[in-house]
Amino acid sequence: MAVINQDAHGGAAEQSRPIGVFDSGIGGLTVVSALRTLLPNESIFYLGDTARVPYGGKSAATVQRYSLEIAAMLLSENAKTVVVACNTASAVALSQLTATLPVTVTGVIQPGAQAAIAVTRNGHVGVIGTRATINSGAYERALRSLDPKVRVSARACPLLVPLIEEGWLQTAITDEIIMQYVSPLVNDGIDTLVLGCTHYPLLREAMARLLGDRITLVDSAQNCANAVRELLLRENLCAAGPDAGRLQVALTDQPDNFLRVAREALQLDVGDVQVRE
Amino acid sequence: MAVINQDAHGGAAEQSRPIGVFDSGIGGLTVVSALRTLLPNESIFYLGDTARVPYGGKSAATVQRYSLEIAAMLLSENAKTVVVACNTASAVALSQLTATLPVTVTGVIQPGAQAAIAVTRNGHVGVIGTRATINSGAYERALRSLDPKVRVSARACPLLVPLIEEGWLQTAITDEIIMQYVSPLVNDGIDTLVLGCTHYPLLREAMARLLGDRITLVDSAQNCANAVRELLLRENLCAAGPDAGRLQVALTDQPDNFLRVAREALQLDVGDVQVRE
Repeated sequence: MAVINQDAHGGAAEQSRPIGVFDSGIGGLTVVSALRTLLPNESIFYLGDTARVPYGGKSAATVQRYSLEIAAMLLSENAKTVVVACNTASAVALSQLTATLPVTVTGVIQPGAQAAIAVTRNGHVGVIGTRATINSGAYERALRSLDPKVRVSARACPLLVPLIEEGWLQTAITDEIIMQYVSPLVNDGIDTLVLGCTHYPLLREAMARLLGDRITLVDSAQNCANAVRELLLRENLCAAGPDAGRLQVALTDQPDNFLRVAREALQLDVGDVQVRE
Repeated sequence: MAVINQDAHGGAAEQSRPIGVFDSGIGGLTVVSALRTLLPNESIFYLGDTARVPYGGKSAATVQRYSLEIAAMLLSENAKTVVVACNTASAVALSQLTATLPVTVTGVIQPGAQAAIAVTRNGHVGVIGTRATINSGAYERALRSLDPKVRVSARACPLLVPLIEEGWLQTAITDEIIMQYVSPLVNDGIDTLVLGCTHYPLLREAMARLLGDRITLVDSAQNCANAVRELLLRENLCAAGPDAGRLQVALTDQPDNFLRVAREALQLDVGDVQVRE
Protein backbone atom coordinates (compact mmCIF):
# COMPACT_ATOMS: atom_id res chain seq x y z
CA MET A 1 0.00 0.00 0.00
CA ALA A 2 1.29 3.51 -0.79
CA VAL A 3 2.15 6.09 1.86
CA ILE A 4 -1.02 6.87 3.76
CA ASN A 5 -2.29 10.41 3.55
CA GLN A 6 -5.00 11.04 6.14
CA ASP A 7 -6.17 14.08 4.15
CA ALA A 8 -9.91 14.25 4.78
CA HIS A 9 -10.60 16.39 1.71
CA GLY A 10 -10.38 13.67 -0.88
CA GLY A 11 -6.70 13.78 -1.91
CA ALA A 12 -5.31 11.13 -4.26
CA ALA A 13 -3.99 8.99 -1.40
CA GLU A 14 -7.40 9.08 0.24
CA GLN A 15 -9.03 7.85 -2.95
CA SER A 16 -6.60 4.98 -3.47
CA ARG A 17 -7.46 3.47 -0.09
CA PRO A 18 -9.55 0.30 -0.27
CA ILE A 19 -13.25 -0.05 0.37
CA GLY A 20 -13.51 -2.15 3.55
CA VAL A 21 -16.27 -4.77 3.41
CA PHE A 22 -17.23 -7.14 6.21
CA ASP A 23 -19.65 -9.96 6.82
CA SER A 24 -20.10 -12.65 9.44
CA GLY A 25 -18.68 -15.09 6.90
CA ILE A 26 -18.51 -15.68 3.18
CA GLY A 27 -22.02 -14.55 2.17
CA GLY A 28 -20.93 -10.92 1.82
CA LEU A 29 -18.90 -11.90 -1.24
CA THR A 30 -22.18 -11.38 -3.13
CA VAL A 31 -21.75 -7.67 -2.30
CA VAL A 32 -18.10 -7.83 -3.35
CA SER A 33 -19.12 -9.42 -6.64
CA ALA A 34 -21.61 -6.59 -7.28
CA LEU A 35 -19.02 -3.95 -6.29
CA ARG A 36 -16.38 -5.46 -8.61
CA THR A 37 -18.77 -5.23 -11.56
CA LEU A 38 -19.95 -1.73 -10.72
CA LEU A 39 -16.63 -0.24 -9.55
CA PRO A 40 -13.84 -2.21 -11.22
CA ASN A 41 -11.17 0.40 -10.38
CA GLU A 42 -11.80 0.23 -6.63
CA SER A 43 -9.61 -1.87 -4.37
CA ILE A 44 -11.54 -3.89 -1.81
CA PHE A 45 -10.47 -5.41 1.48
CA TYR A 46 -13.02 -8.05 2.55
CA LEU A 47 -13.06 -9.49 6.04
CA GLY A 48 -15.31 -12.47 6.90
CA ASP A 49 -15.69 -13.35 10.59
CA THR A 50 -15.81 -17.08 9.90
CA ALA A 51 -14.47 -17.94 13.37
CA ARG A 52 -17.78 -16.71 14.82
CA VAL A 53 -20.15 -17.22 11.87
CA PRO A 54 -23.15 -17.09 11.74
CA TYR A 55 -24.34 -13.84 13.35
CA GLY A 56 -27.96 -14.54 12.32
CA GLY A 57 -29.02 -16.50 15.41
CA LYS A 58 -27.13 -14.39 17.96
CA SER A 59 -28.31 -11.56 20.19
CA ALA A 60 -28.11 -7.91 19.19
CA ALA A 61 -25.52 -7.16 21.92
CA THR A 62 -23.22 -9.94 20.71
CA VAL A 63 -23.56 -8.93 17.04
CA GLN A 64 -22.82 -5.29 17.97
CA ARG A 65 -19.65 -6.31 19.82
CA TYR A 66 -18.44 -8.49 16.96
CA SER A 67 -19.23 -5.82 14.35
CA LEU A 68 -17.22 -3.14 16.17
CA GLU A 69 -14.26 -5.51 16.50
CA ILE A 70 -14.33 -6.48 12.82
CA ALA A 71 -14.78 -2.88 11.64
CA ALA A 72 -11.70 -1.90 13.69
CA MET A 73 -9.70 -4.48 11.73
CA LEU A 74 -10.87 -2.87 8.47
CA LEU A 75 -9.75 0.55 9.70
CA SER A 76 -6.32 -0.86 10.43
CA GLU A 77 -6.28 -1.84 6.73
CA ASN A 78 -6.82 1.88 6.02
CA ALA A 79 -10.33 1.46 4.60
CA LYS A 80 -11.70 4.75 3.19
CA THR A 81 -15.28 3.63 3.84
CA VAL A 82 -16.86 0.60 5.52
CA VAL A 83 -19.54 -1.57 3.92
CA VAL A 84 -21.56 -3.81 6.23
CA ALA A 85 -22.23 -6.66 3.78
CA CYS A 86 -24.31 -8.52 6.34
CA ASN A 87 -27.99 -7.94 6.92
CA THR A 88 -27.83 -9.07 10.54
CA ALA A 89 -25.05 -6.61 11.42
CA SER A 90 -26.77 -3.88 9.36
CA ALA A 91 -30.01 -4.54 11.21
CA VAL A 92 -28.66 -4.33 14.75
CA ALA A 93 -25.24 -2.60 14.66
CA LEU A 94 -25.35 0.05 11.91
CA SER A 95 -26.16 3.02 14.15
CA GLN A 96 -23.37 2.08 16.58
CA LEU A 97 -20.92 1.65 13.72
CA THR A 98 -21.93 4.99 12.17
CA ALA A 99 -21.56 6.75 15.52
CA THR A 100 -18.21 5.15 16.32
CA LEU A 101 -16.21 4.86 13.08
CA PRO A 102 -14.24 7.82 11.63
CA VAL A 103 -15.30 6.87 8.06
CA THR A 104 -18.66 6.59 6.29
CA VAL A 105 -20.60 3.35 6.77
CA THR A 106 -23.03 1.74 4.31
CA GLY A 107 -25.34 -1.09 5.29
CA VAL A 108 -27.57 -3.30 3.19
CA ILE A 109 -30.98 -2.56 4.73
CA GLN A 110 -31.63 1.02 3.60
CA PRO A 111 -30.62 0.41 -0.06
CA GLY A 112 -32.76 -2.75 -0.16
CA ALA A 113 -35.74 -0.93 1.35
CA GLN A 114 -35.42 1.92 -1.16
CA ALA A 115 -35.31 -0.51 -4.07
CA ALA A 116 -38.36 -2.39 -2.74
CA ILE A 117 -40.42 0.80 -2.39
CA ALA A 118 -39.41 1.79 -5.93
CA VAL A 119 -40.57 -1.48 -7.51
CA THR A 120 -43.66 -2.55 -5.56
CA ARG A 121 -46.88 -1.93 -7.47
CA ASN A 122 -49.39 -3.01 -4.81
CA GLY A 123 -47.50 -1.60 -1.82
CA HIS A 124 -47.07 -5.01 -0.16
CA VAL A 125 -43.44 -6.05 0.36
CA GLY A 126 -42.13 -9.37 1.67
CA VAL A 127 -38.84 -9.64 3.53
CA ILE A 128 -36.88 -12.82 4.26
CA GLY A 129 -33.71 -13.01 6.36
CA THR A 130 -32.05 -14.58 9.37
CA ARG A 131 -33.83 -14.77 12.68
CA ALA A 132 -31.81 -11.83 14.06
CA THR A 133 -32.54 -9.62 11.04
CA ILE A 134 -36.26 -10.33 11.06
CA ASN A 135 -36.60 -10.05 14.84
CA SER A 136 -34.89 -6.65 14.73
CA GLY A 137 -37.73 -5.20 12.62
CA ALA A 138 -35.09 -3.12 10.78
CA TYR A 139 -36.60 -3.67 7.32
CA GLU A 140 -40.09 -2.77 8.50
CA ARG A 141 -38.76 0.46 10.01
CA ALA A 142 -36.75 1.34 6.89
CA LEU A 143 -39.69 0.57 4.57
CA ARG A 144 -42.21 2.49 6.67
CA SER A 145 -39.93 5.53 6.95
CA LEU A 146 -39.92 5.65 3.13
CA ASP A 147 -43.65 4.95 2.74
CA PRO A 148 -45.80 4.97 5.90
CA LYS A 149 -48.57 3.10 4.04
CA VAL A 150 -46.47 0.13 2.89
CA ARG A 151 -47.61 -3.31 4.03
CA VAL A 152 -44.78 -5.63 5.13
CA SER A 153 -44.82 -9.42 5.55
CA ALA A 154 -41.58 -10.72 7.06
CA ARG A 155 -40.31 -14.23 7.71
CA ALA A 156 -37.14 -15.65 9.23
CA CYS A 157 -35.68 -18.49 7.11
CA PRO A 158 -32.89 -20.01 9.24
CA LEU A 159 -32.34 -23.01 6.97
CA LEU A 160 -31.48 -21.08 3.81
CA VAL A 161 -27.96 -20.09 4.89
CA PRO A 162 -26.90 -23.66 5.75
CA LEU A 163 -28.45 -24.92 2.50
CA ILE A 164 -26.43 -22.37 0.54
CA GLU A 165 -23.27 -23.16 2.49
CA GLU A 166 -23.81 -26.85 1.70
CA GLY A 167 -23.86 -25.86 -1.98
CA TRP A 168 -27.43 -27.12 -2.54
CA LEU A 169 -28.33 -24.16 -4.73
CA GLN A 170 -30.54 -26.01 -7.23
CA THR A 171 -31.99 -29.14 -5.60
CA ALA A 172 -35.54 -30.39 -5.09
CA ILE A 173 -35.12 -30.20 -1.31
CA THR A 174 -33.97 -26.57 -1.53
CA ASP A 175 -37.00 -25.79 -3.70
CA GLU A 176 -39.30 -27.34 -1.09
CA ILE A 177 -37.72 -25.41 1.77
CA ILE A 178 -37.88 -22.12 -0.15
CA MET A 179 -41.58 -22.69 -0.85
CA GLN A 180 -42.27 -23.70 2.76
CA TYR A 181 -40.83 -20.36 3.90
CA VAL A 182 -42.05 -18.10 1.09
CA SER A 183 -45.52 -19.47 0.22
CA PRO A 184 -47.23 -17.83 3.23
CA LEU A 185 -45.85 -14.44 2.09
CA VAL A 186 -47.02 -15.03 -1.47
CA ASN A 187 -50.45 -16.09 -0.19
CA ASP A 188 -50.50 -12.91 1.90
CA GLY A 189 -50.34 -10.94 -1.36
CA ILE A 190 -46.78 -9.57 -1.63
CA ASP A 191 -45.62 -8.54 -5.10
CA THR A 192 -42.01 -7.81 -4.10
CA LEU A 193 -39.60 -9.93 -2.04
CA VAL A 194 -36.48 -8.49 -0.41
CA LEU A 195 -33.68 -11.08 -0.16
CA GLY A 196 -32.64 -9.73 3.23
CA CYS A 197 -29.48 -11.77 3.69
CA THR A 198 -26.33 -11.48 1.63
CA HIS A 199 -26.25 -15.25 1.14
CA TYR A 200 -29.61 -15.29 -0.59
CA PRO A 201 -28.58 -13.93 -4.02
CA LEU A 202 -27.01 -17.38 -4.48
CA LEU A 203 -30.59 -18.75 -4.44
CA ARG A 204 -31.83 -16.01 -6.76
CA GLU A 205 -32.13 -18.31 -9.78
CA ALA A 206 -34.05 -20.95 -7.81
CA MET A 207 -36.39 -18.31 -6.35
CA ALA A 208 -37.01 -16.64 -9.70
CA ARG A 209 -37.86 -20.04 -11.21
CA LEU A 210 -40.20 -20.91 -8.30
CA LEU A 211 -41.92 -17.54 -7.95
CA GLY A 212 -42.11 -16.58 -11.63
CA ASP A 213 -43.10 -13.12 -12.80
CA ARG A 214 -45.62 -12.52 -10.02
CA ILE A 215 -42.93 -11.52 -7.54
CA THR A 216 -40.09 -9.02 -8.08
CA LEU A 217 -36.94 -10.02 -6.22
CA VAL A 218 -34.90 -7.27 -4.55
CA ASP A 219 -31.27 -8.25 -4.14
CA SER A 220 -29.78 -6.52 -1.10
CA ALA A 221 -26.23 -7.13 -2.36
CA GLN A 222 -26.79 -5.36 -5.68
CA ASN A 223 -28.58 -2.42 -4.09
CA CYS A 224 -25.87 -2.05 -1.46
CA ALA A 225 -23.25 -1.84 -4.23
CA ASN A 226 -25.31 0.86 -5.96
CA ALA A 227 -25.43 2.84 -2.70
CA VAL A 228 -21.65 2.56 -2.27
CA ARG A 229 -21.10 3.94 -5.77
CA GLU A 230 -23.33 6.92 -5.03
CA LEU A 231 -21.51 7.54 -1.74
CA LEU A 232 -18.06 7.49 -3.38
CA LEU A 233 -19.20 9.94 -6.06
CA ARG A 234 -20.86 12.24 -3.49
CA GLU A 235 -17.87 12.24 -1.13
CA ASN A 236 -15.26 12.48 -3.92
CA LEU A 237 -13.74 9.19 -2.80
CA CYS A 238 -13.64 7.34 -6.13
CA ALA A 239 -10.33 5.71 -7.10
CA ALA A 240 -8.62 8.04 -9.57
CA GLY A 241 -6.53 5.79 -11.79
CA PRO A 242 -7.49 3.63 -14.73
CA ASP A 243 -5.98 0.52 -13.11
CA ALA A 244 -8.08 -2.42 -12.03
CA GLY A 245 -8.66 -2.43 -8.29
CA ARG A 246 -7.21 -5.13 -6.08
CA LEU A 247 -9.35 -7.59 -4.11
CA GLN A 248 -7.98 -8.94 -0.85
CA VAL A 249 -9.98 -11.46 1.16
CA ALA A 250 -9.25 -12.25 4.81
CA LEU A 251 -11.16 -14.58 7.13
CA THR A 252 -10.95 -15.11 10.89
CA ASP A 253 -10.83 -18.89 10.41
CA GLN A 254 -9.54 -21.29 7.74
CA PRO A 255 -11.64 -21.25 4.56
CA ASP A 256 -14.02 -24.20 4.19
CA ASN A 257 -16.28 -25.73 1.57
CA PHE A 258 -18.49 -22.64 1.28
CA LEU A 259 -15.67 -20.47 -0.06
CA ARG A 260 -15.44 -22.86 -3.01
CA VAL A 261 -19.23 -22.76 -3.46
CA ALA A 262 -19.32 -18.95 -3.43
CA ARG A 263 -16.27 -18.56 -5.66
CA GLU A 264 -17.79 -20.84 -8.27
CA ALA A 265 -21.31 -19.44 -8.09
CA LEU A 266 -20.09 -15.83 -8.25
CA GLN A 267 -17.15 -16.54 -10.60
CA LEU A 268 -15.07 -14.35 -8.32
CA ASP A 269 -11.26 -14.49 -8.22
CA VAL A 270 -10.46 -14.04 -4.52
CA GLY A 271 -6.73 -14.81 -4.81
CA ASP A 272 -4.88 -16.08 -1.75
CA VAL A 273 -7.15 -15.88 1.27
CA GLN A 274 -5.48 -14.60 4.44
CA VAL A 275 -6.40 -15.81 7.92
CA ARG A 276 -6.49 -13.21 10.73
CA GLU A 277 -7.17 -14.16 14.31
CA MET B 1 -22.43 -23.81 46.55
CA ALA B 2 -20.90 -25.09 49.80
CA VAL B 3 -17.41 -24.17 50.97
CA ILE B 4 -15.00 -25.53 48.42
CA ASN B 5 -12.62 -28.22 49.60
CA GLN B 6 -9.89 -28.80 47.06
CA ASP B 7 -9.14 -32.19 48.66
CA ALA B 8 -8.00 -34.38 45.79
CA HIS B 9 -8.67 -37.65 47.61
CA GLY B 10 -12.39 -37.77 47.20
CA GLY B 11 -13.65 -36.10 50.37
CA ALA B 12 -17.34 -35.23 50.78
CA ALA B 13 -16.82 -31.67 49.50
CA GLU B 14 -15.07 -33.03 46.43
CA GLN B 15 -18.02 -35.29 45.68
CA SER B 16 -20.61 -32.54 46.04
CA ARG B 17 -18.96 -30.46 43.34
CA PRO B 18 -20.88 -30.35 40.06
CA ILE B 19 -20.15 -32.24 36.88
CA GLY B 20 -19.12 -29.59 34.35
CA VAL B 21 -20.60 -30.13 30.90
CA PHE B 22 -19.94 -28.00 27.84
CA ASP B 23 -21.02 -27.83 24.23
CA SER B 24 -20.79 -25.30 21.43
CA GLY B 25 -24.45 -24.58 22.03
CA ILE B 26 -27.63 -26.25 23.21
CA GLY B 27 -27.19 -29.69 21.61
CA GLY B 28 -25.20 -31.00 24.58
CA LEU B 29 -28.39 -30.88 26.65
CA THR B 30 -29.03 -34.35 25.21
CA VAL B 31 -26.04 -35.48 27.30
CA VAL B 32 -27.39 -33.60 30.31
CA SER B 33 -30.74 -35.31 29.87
CA ALA B 34 -29.04 -38.73 29.83
CA LEU B 35 -26.91 -37.79 32.87
CA ARG B 36 -29.98 -36.60 34.82
CA THR B 37 -31.69 -39.94 34.25
CA LEU B 38 -28.62 -42.02 35.05
CA LEU B 39 -27.20 -39.93 37.91
CA PRO B 40 -30.11 -38.04 39.48
CA ASN B 41 -28.10 -37.13 42.59
CA GLU B 42 -25.36 -35.35 40.68
CA SER B 43 -25.33 -31.59 40.30
CA ILE B 44 -24.51 -30.40 36.80
CA PHE B 45 -23.20 -27.09 35.54
CA TYR B 46 -23.82 -26.83 31.79
CA LEU B 47 -22.15 -24.17 29.67
CA GLY B 48 -23.18 -23.67 26.02
CA ASP B 49 -20.97 -21.41 23.90
CA THR B 50 -23.91 -19.99 21.97
CA ALA B 51 -22.06 -16.73 21.21
CA ARG B 52 -19.76 -18.71 18.90
CA VAL B 53 -21.98 -21.67 17.94
CA PRO B 54 -21.60 -23.77 15.83
CA TYR B 55 -18.12 -25.30 16.17
CA GLY B 56 -18.87 -27.89 13.48
CA GLY B 57 -17.74 -25.91 10.46
CA LYS B 58 -14.71 -24.27 12.09
CA SER B 59 -11.02 -25.22 11.99
CA ALA B 60 -9.39 -27.48 14.57
CA ALA B 61 -7.20 -24.64 15.89
CA THR B 62 -10.22 -22.40 16.49
CA VAL B 63 -12.25 -25.19 18.15
CA GLN B 64 -9.28 -26.02 20.40
CA ARG B 65 -8.95 -22.38 21.50
CA TYR B 66 -12.68 -22.10 22.22
CA SER B 67 -12.77 -25.43 24.10
CA LEU B 68 -9.93 -24.45 26.43
CA GLU B 69 -11.62 -21.11 27.17
CA ILE B 70 -14.97 -22.73 27.93
CA ALA B 71 -13.42 -25.49 30.05
CA ALA B 72 -11.66 -22.82 32.12
CA MET B 73 -15.07 -21.29 32.87
CA LEU B 74 -16.29 -24.71 34.10
CA LEU B 75 -13.26 -25.01 36.40
CA SER B 76 -14.10 -21.62 37.88
CA GLU B 77 -17.51 -23.17 38.70
CA ASN B 78 -15.54 -25.79 40.65
CA ALA B 79 -16.39 -28.71 38.34
CA LYS B 80 -15.11 -32.05 39.68
CA THR B 81 -14.90 -33.49 36.17
CA VAL B 82 -15.44 -32.06 32.69
CA VAL B 83 -17.70 -33.61 30.06
CA VAL B 84 -17.19 -32.52 26.48
CA ALA B 85 -20.79 -32.89 25.27
CA CYS B 86 -19.84 -31.88 21.75
CA ASN B 87 -18.56 -34.27 19.12
CA THR B 88 -16.63 -31.57 17.28
CA ALA B 89 -14.72 -30.49 20.40
CA SER B 90 -14.24 -34.15 21.41
CA ALA B 91 -12.87 -34.91 17.95
CA VAL B 92 -10.30 -32.14 17.78
CA ALA B 93 -9.65 -30.82 21.32
CA LEU B 94 -9.93 -33.78 23.73
CA SER B 95 -6.22 -34.56 23.98
CA GLN B 96 -5.40 -30.89 24.61
CA LEU B 97 -8.13 -30.65 27.26
CA THR B 98 -6.96 -33.86 28.93
CA ALA B 99 -3.35 -32.65 28.97
CA THR B 100 -4.26 -29.18 30.27
CA LEU B 101 -7.10 -29.53 32.79
CA PRO B 102 -6.50 -30.54 36.44
CA VAL B 103 -9.64 -32.76 36.42
CA THR B 104 -10.69 -35.81 34.41
CA VAL B 105 -12.21 -35.19 30.98
CA THR B 106 -14.79 -37.36 29.19
CA GLY B 107 -15.61 -36.90 25.53
CA VAL B 108 -18.34 -38.43 23.40
CA ILE B 109 -16.27 -40.18 20.72
CA GLN B 110 -14.67 -43.05 22.65
CA PRO B 111 -17.92 -44.12 24.39
CA GLY B 112 -19.80 -44.01 21.09
CA ALA B 113 -17.11 -46.03 19.33
CA GLN B 114 -17.14 -48.66 22.09
CA ALA B 115 -20.92 -49.01 21.87
CA ALA B 116 -20.78 -49.32 18.08
CA ILE B 117 -18.16 -52.08 18.19
CA ALA B 118 -20.27 -53.88 20.81
CA VAL B 119 -23.44 -53.87 18.70
CA THR B 120 -22.30 -54.28 15.08
CA ARG B 121 -22.87 -57.78 13.75
CA ASN B 122 -21.31 -57.40 10.30
CA GLY B 123 -18.40 -55.19 11.38
CA HIS B 124 -19.47 -52.26 9.20
CA VAL B 125 -20.22 -49.06 11.12
CA GLY B 126 -21.59 -45.80 9.75
CA VAL B 127 -20.81 -42.44 11.36
CA ILE B 128 -22.60 -39.13 10.76
CA GLY B 129 -21.58 -35.80 12.24
CA THR B 130 -20.58 -32.22 11.48
CA ARG B 131 -18.00 -31.43 8.85
CA ALA B 132 -15.30 -30.83 11.49
CA THR B 133 -16.02 -34.12 13.30
CA ILE B 134 -16.00 -36.19 10.12
CA ASN B 135 -12.94 -34.43 8.64
CA SER B 136 -11.02 -35.09 11.85
CA GLY B 137 -11.28 -38.87 11.34
CA ALA B 138 -11.61 -39.22 15.12
CA TYR B 139 -14.36 -41.87 14.97
CA GLU B 140 -12.45 -43.98 12.44
CA ARG B 141 -9.37 -43.87 14.69
CA ALA B 142 -11.37 -44.75 17.82
CA LEU B 143 -13.24 -47.57 16.06
CA ARG B 144 -10.09 -49.04 14.49
CA SER B 145 -8.17 -48.89 17.78
CA LEU B 146 -10.95 -51.08 19.25
CA ASP B 147 -11.22 -53.41 16.24
CA PRO B 148 -8.61 -53.06 13.49
CA LYS B 149 -10.84 -54.99 11.07
CA VAL B 150 -13.91 -52.75 11.41
CA ARG B 151 -15.15 -51.12 8.20
CA VAL B 152 -16.22 -47.48 8.61
CA SER B 153 -18.40 -45.35 6.29
CA ALA B 154 -18.54 -41.73 7.43
CA ARG B 155 -20.50 -38.76 6.17
CA ALA B 156 -20.73 -35.11 7.16
CA CYS B 157 -24.36 -33.89 7.45
CA PRO B 158 -24.12 -30.11 7.88
CA LEU B 159 -27.86 -29.50 7.44
CA LEU B 160 -29.05 -31.68 10.32
CA VAL B 161 -28.05 -29.26 13.09
CA PRO B 162 -29.89 -26.28 11.55
CA LEU B 163 -32.94 -28.49 10.90
CA ILE B 164 -32.97 -29.55 14.55
CA GLU B 165 -32.45 -25.97 15.75
CA GLU B 166 -35.39 -24.90 13.57
CA GLY B 167 -37.46 -27.51 15.44
CA TRP B 168 -38.25 -29.50 12.29
CA LEU B 169 -37.83 -32.83 14.06
CA GLN B 170 -40.60 -34.74 12.30
CA THR B 171 -41.28 -33.21 8.89
CA ALA B 172 -41.27 -34.61 5.37
CA ILE B 173 -38.38 -32.33 4.39
CA THR B 174 -36.32 -33.53 7.34
CA ASP B 175 -37.02 -37.13 6.35
CA GLU B 176 -35.81 -36.40 2.82
CA ILE B 177 -32.62 -34.74 4.00
CA ILE B 178 -31.87 -37.58 6.43
CA MET B 179 -32.28 -40.12 3.64
CA GLN B 180 -30.18 -38.04 1.22
CA TYR B 181 -27.33 -38.14 3.74
CA VAL B 182 -27.77 -41.66 5.14
CA SER B 183 -28.88 -43.72 2.10
CA PRO B 184 -25.34 -44.00 0.66
CA LEU B 185 -24.15 -45.43 4.00
CA VAL B 186 -27.02 -47.92 4.10
CA ASN B 187 -26.33 -48.90 0.48
CA ASP B 188 -22.67 -49.36 1.46
CA GLY B 189 -23.82 -52.08 3.88
CA ILE B 190 -23.59 -50.58 7.39
CA ASP B 191 -25.64 -52.29 10.09
CA THR B 192 -24.88 -49.72 12.82
CA LEU B 193 -25.04 -45.92 12.68
CA VAL B 194 -23.28 -43.68 15.21
CA LEU B 195 -25.16 -40.41 15.75
CA GLY B 196 -21.88 -38.50 16.02
CA CYS B 197 -23.29 -35.13 17.05
CA THR B 198 -25.03 -34.37 20.31
CA HIS B 199 -27.88 -32.68 18.43
CA TYR B 200 -28.75 -35.85 16.56
CA PRO B 201 -30.55 -37.76 19.34
CA LEU B 202 -33.35 -35.24 18.74
CA LEU B 203 -33.76 -36.89 15.32
CA ARG B 204 -33.54 -40.38 16.77
CA GLU B 205 -37.24 -41.12 16.37
CA ALA B 206 -37.27 -39.95 12.76
CA MET B 207 -34.16 -41.99 11.95
CA ALA B 208 -35.48 -45.12 13.66
CA ARG B 209 -38.72 -44.79 11.67
CA LEU B 210 -36.84 -44.27 8.38
CA LEU B 211 -34.14 -46.91 8.87
CA GLY B 212 -36.23 -49.57 10.61
CA ASP B 213 -34.71 -52.63 12.24
CA ARG B 214 -31.91 -53.03 9.70
CA ILE B 215 -29.74 -50.37 11.33
CA THR B 216 -28.88 -50.09 15.03
CA LEU B 217 -28.55 -46.46 16.13
CA VAL B 218 -25.76 -45.59 18.58
CA ASP B 219 -26.56 -42.47 20.57
CA SER B 220 -23.35 -40.67 21.52
CA ALA B 221 -25.14 -38.73 24.27
CA GLN B 222 -26.39 -41.86 26.06
CA ASN B 223 -23.03 -43.63 25.82
CA CYS B 224 -21.18 -40.56 27.07
CA ALA B 225 -23.45 -40.49 30.14
CA ASN B 226 -22.70 -44.18 30.77
CA ALA B 227 -18.96 -43.43 30.59
CA VAL B 228 -19.31 -40.56 33.08
CA ARG B 229 -21.09 -42.86 35.54
CA GLU B 230 -18.28 -45.41 35.29
CA LEU B 231 -15.68 -42.68 35.77
CA LEU B 232 -17.37 -41.29 38.90
CA LEU B 233 -17.61 -44.79 40.41
CA ARG B 234 -13.99 -45.60 39.55
CA GLU B 235 -12.62 -42.31 40.90
CA ASN B 236 -14.87 -42.27 43.98
CA LEU B 237 -16.38 -38.99 42.86
CA CYS B 238 -20.09 -39.85 43.12
CA ALA B 239 -22.30 -37.41 45.01
CA ALA B 240 -22.85 -38.82 48.50
CA GLY B 241 -26.25 -37.56 49.62
CA PRO B 242 -29.74 -38.76 48.77
CA ASP B 243 -30.74 -35.30 47.54
CA ALA B 244 -31.59 -34.61 43.95
CA GLY B 245 -28.74 -32.88 42.14
CA ARG B 246 -29.08 -29.34 40.89
CA LEU B 247 -28.94 -28.38 37.22
CA GLN B 248 -27.57 -24.98 36.27
CA VAL B 249 -27.47 -23.89 32.64
CA ALA B 250 -25.36 -20.98 31.42
CA LEU B 251 -24.92 -19.74 27.84
CA THR B 252 -22.49 -17.24 26.32
CA ASP B 253 -25.35 -15.51 24.46
CA GLN B 254 -29.06 -14.95 25.04
CA PRO B 255 -31.13 -18.15 24.67
CA ASP B 256 -33.04 -18.44 21.41
CA ASN B 257 -35.71 -20.61 19.84
CA PHE B 258 -33.62 -23.78 20.04
CA LEU B 259 -33.54 -23.77 23.84
CA ARG B 260 -37.33 -24.07 23.76
CA VAL B 261 -37.13 -26.86 21.16
CA ALA B 262 -34.58 -28.83 23.21
CA ARG B 263 -36.38 -28.28 26.51
CA GLU B 264 -39.62 -29.57 25.06
CA ALA B 265 -38.12 -32.49 23.16
CA LEU B 266 -36.04 -33.62 26.15
CA GLN B 267 -38.61 -32.65 28.80
CA LEU B 268 -35.75 -31.08 30.73
CA ASP B 269 -36.25 -28.46 33.44
CA VAL B 270 -33.31 -26.10 32.92
CA GLY B 271 -34.51 -23.44 35.39
CA ASP B 272 -33.31 -19.85 34.92
CA VAL B 273 -30.66 -19.73 32.25
CA GLN B 274 -27.67 -17.50 33.05
CA VAL B 275 -25.77 -15.55 30.38
CA ARG B 276 -21.95 -15.34 30.74
CA GLU B 277 -19.82 -13.32 28.38
